[in-house]
Amino acid sequence: MREKRLSEIGEKKLVEMLVDLLRSDWRCNDLPPGDDAACVSLPGGAKLLVKIDGFSVSSVKLPWMTLYDVGWKAVVATASDLVAKGGRPLVFLVSIGLRRDDRAADALELVKGARDAAKAVGAWLAGGDTNAAGDPWIDTAGVATPVRIVAPRVRNGDLIYTTVGRYGLTGLAFHIMRRGDTSEIYSYPEALRATTRPLPRLEFLSLLEEVGECITWAGDVSDGLCATLRNLHTISEHRIILDALPPLHPEAIEYAESHRLDISELILYGGEEYEIVFTVARGCETHVERAANRLGLRIARIGFVVPKSITSSIHTERVSESSWIPINSCLERVSTGWDQFKGWA
Amino acid sequence: MREKRLSEIGEKKLVEMLVDLLRSDWRCNDLPPGDDAACVSLPGGAKLLVKIDGFSVSSVKLPWMTLYDVGWKAVVATASDLVAKGGRPLVFLVSIGLRRDDRAADALELVKGARDAAKAVGAWLAGGDTNAAGDPWIDTAGVATPVRIVAPRVRNGDLIYTTVGRYGLTGLAFHIMRRGDTSEIYSYPEALRATTRPLPRLEFLSLLEEVGECITWAGDVSDGLCATLRNLHTISEHRIILDALPPLHPEAIEYAESHRLDISELILYGGEEYEIVFTVARGCETHVERAANRLGLRIARIGFVVPKSITSSIHTERVSESSWIPINSCLERVSTGWDQFKGWA
Repeated sequence: MREKRLSEIGEKKLVEMLVDLLRSDWRCNDLPPGDDAACVSLPGGAKLLVKIDGFSVSSVKLPWMTLYDVGWKAVVATASDLVAKGGRPLVFLVSIGLRRDDRAADALELVKGARDAAKAVGAWLAGGDTNAAGDPWIDTAGVATPVRIVAPRVRNGDLIYTTVGRYGLTGLAFHIMRRGDTSEIYSYPEALRATTRPLPRLEFLSLLEEVGECITWAGDVSDGLCATLRNLHTISEHRIILDALPPLHPEAIEYAESHRLDISELILYGGEEYEIVFTVARGCETHVERAANRLGLRIARIGFVVPKSITSSIHTERVSESSWIPINSCLERVSTGWDQFKGWA
Repeated sequence: MREKRLSEIGEKKLVEMLVDLLRSDWRCNDLPPGDDAACVSLPGGAKLLVKIDGFSVSSVKLPWMTLYDVGWKAVVATASDLVAKGGRPLVFLVSIGLRRDDRAADALELVKGARDAAKAVGAWLAGGDTNAAGDPWIDTAGVATPVRIVAPRVRNGDLIYTTVGRYGLTGLAFHIMRRGDTSEIYSYPEALRATTRPLPRLEFLSLLEEVGECITWAGDVSDGLCATLRNLHTISEHRIILDALPPLHPEAIEYAESHRLDISELILYGGEEYEIVFTVARGCETHVERAANRLGLRIARIGFVVPKSITSSIHTERVSESSWIPINSCLERVSTGWDQFKGWA
């Protein structure tokens, strides 16, 4: 396995191997190695959340994105992971790699986007590092102060919720990108905006302040809803039943109809929506739904968790064929979605 | 200027432009934008130091280095900047970019080196991110708790000190690398060790605990002593008089003699020694020297600062020709040393 190429084993397997490396020295009791962020105890007992996230510029720069947009997205991707684990973003740092024949203006645009996104999420950009690179990259590190660390404690019967409002927007944008006629994006202004100036769901922090004791797990949707549910499935040791899909954004409905697409594909396999999926302890539903309503945070219940020992034959009695099949197939298609080393699968 | 290529303007000019971008939103009162680390205030008033540092793997991997060594150096480079500004390393994160046809073993070695270096400096590795890259890179973010933040407050007459013991080792290693017959490095075991398993001067934190009020500036030697002194020169608005060079490591003396090299070249233009240069308020010398002695930290006084208004004709009266010329020429050779976009100059 160690001698295999990364393109053979894929990113998920590599991450598993790296997580094993870090496990024995792990000092964050609330969040396991491999989770979207880690926690750190300060001398004195206070805690922080920390996260680093990066990518090669070419892998995320959709044809209509500027380098400003890339810098913006780099910070938001890191911020969203911190927010999902209960952290209020405090500060960001960026490290950029650029080609020697790139223009100074390129570097400035990239960092301006990062700086402005940091401000937009209530934090600031405390510097960075510049490097020469054959293949440009940007890495963003973020530090957050916990509102309430969302340590995973999913139990049988917990309900699965997600913040909503953006589903389908990035899925349609990626679909346009893969079809090749990228000018079509300008007919979908909200999808254009979702891919160039996304924002994390900071309102989720207010929900945690109000009803944090009810929330038993949370993760942001960065690699697609299916991938986020797969993370929940892995971490919780529970089976996931999806009995409703989150509502699709009107632009995505329009796009799906005009291109005769299966809307579940747009919802499950999009990515970079930065919505937050979270589980709620059974009995807490009303409490959570009322708080979200008060806070103006749109959420939807999309499923629940049952023990892994329950077989799929039971699921079919409880949920309609049409709704549980997509999630089941998504969990079975292990390599579905974006893999850094295998690409789209 | 914005339209120019990075190879034309060079890294130093680019950093100046980026620092200007960040200045208006800067929230770290102790350290200016562009310094080796930034400070962050937590709600409640406690402070942190944060830093990100990265490079493309090919730019730092000397022929005799393994990927483990590269991961190790990535963490130490970040740790050293934090230590120089008065921070005790608490936690690190790494983001790595790898080629699809790299082996899983490569990724594991890189992260193992980073993990072990984090432990060696008293911290831990709290995860990271994996990415596909045409040109492999590693970025390291670090968070430190301040022992005492070394805010710059250099005044006329302050003395310049440096920790010593490693000068010349990396200079000779780089010289071997540029000459091409890399097997010669195995004749210099300490130089081999200095380039593969460096460590930051953590003892400097103990010195700060004891005599921090005497220390008016500090910076680590990562791009060579000359570059560090140039940073001091820029930040302090003072002129630097170097009236002694720090002692060369015995291996470096041997190397310089056998290759008829100017030892000042090895000392001033090496890099990655991770020694710490610091300035001491006039009158504090004995206090600082005694404390360093008690702590087993070898230091040497190498110069002093005078107002910029003092012209060079006065310098020649005060210090011998042979000692002040190297520093003067190093300060004048603005592009001397490693530049990410221009290369060695």
